[in-house]
Amino acid sequence: MAFVPYAIDPDLDLELVRELDVTPELVWRAWTTPELLVQWFTPKPYETTHCEIDLRPGGIFRTVMRSPEGEESDGSGCYLEVIPDERLVWTSAMLPGYRPQPGPMPFTAVIELQPTGSGGTRYRAIVLHQDAEGREQHAQMGFHEGWGAALDQLVELAKSL
Amino acid sequence: MAFVPYAIDPDLDLELVRELDVTPELVWRAWTTPELLVQWFTPKPYETTHCEIDLRPGGIFRTVMRSPEGEESDGSGCYLEVIPDERLVWTSAMLPGYRPQPGPMPFTAVIELQPTGSGGTRYRAIVLHQDAEGREQHAQMGFHEGWGAALDQLVELAKSL
Repeated sequence: MAFVPYAIDPDLDLELVRELDVTPELVWRAWTTPELLVQWFTPKPYETTHCEIDLRPGGIFRTVMRSPEGEESDGSGCYLEVIPDERLVWTSAMLPGYRPQPGPMPFTAVIELQPTGSGGTRYRAIVLHQDAEGREQHAQMGFHEGWGAALDQLVELAKSL
Repeated sequence: MAFVPYAIDPDLDLELVRELDVTPELVWRAWTTPELLVQWFTPKPYETTHCEIDLRPGGIFRTVMRSPEGEESDGSGCYLEVIPDERLVWTSAMLPGYRPQPGPMPFTAVIELQPTGSGGTRYRAIVLHQDAEGREQHAQMGFHEGWGAALDQLVELAKSL
């Protein structure tokens, strides 16, 4: 099937778009391999101490993050779409098996990867919120800085593989 | 792939299981064709006056229901899994495109169809809630009676096709 980019709603969604000089295959591995994901997912000095991945629609995506002060945050969501090297969709609004999960700022993340002519990746991360307040809260929490810094770490890691 | 039935959590889920004397193909058609769904989806004297279906993960499932007093309820959710004649999963907790949606009693429905040896269907409808209160509220609203009466209407319709 032809690649159809996700059409965002600028009032509700946040978006990070960047051209990366690593292949879609490497970016995909970094996003879907627990031992790799823990190395890049949280901008330093925050850490991801644990990651669990069941890479299928309805499967678990769990991360445990730790702040420099030692505060832990343990969150589970589930995957919604898994198209290798191309499109990964997961949500914080559902537990594994698609069970709705309450939470203060539920979101769904869409990661789109497209090969560039030069062996790189056109990377697009979109985060969908249920209302403008959720979007604003996420933006204030530093979405662009945070996801951008994590992506820098991902690229550095991918180049070392 | 081999059929793997959904493993329920009895504290959080509601389940309706029945053997039907119509084929999985006909049950699937009744669940996924708007002109058919409006004929059986709500137990009389309630009516489904409108139905919109985009039968793919992330696609819309919208119904407009009307009470005998003329009160309308317009709800949109989205599909999560679409395996023809076998498994249909949709949720009220997300709008089309997987956008989280606030709501008083979010749920995910899993419809499982398995052929019986005699040309019928082993029908299983499971509804997943985010907490025991959601399950209890749905049970009190008459889940078993309501979904059961709608299923009677579905079977009657399927036999006429």
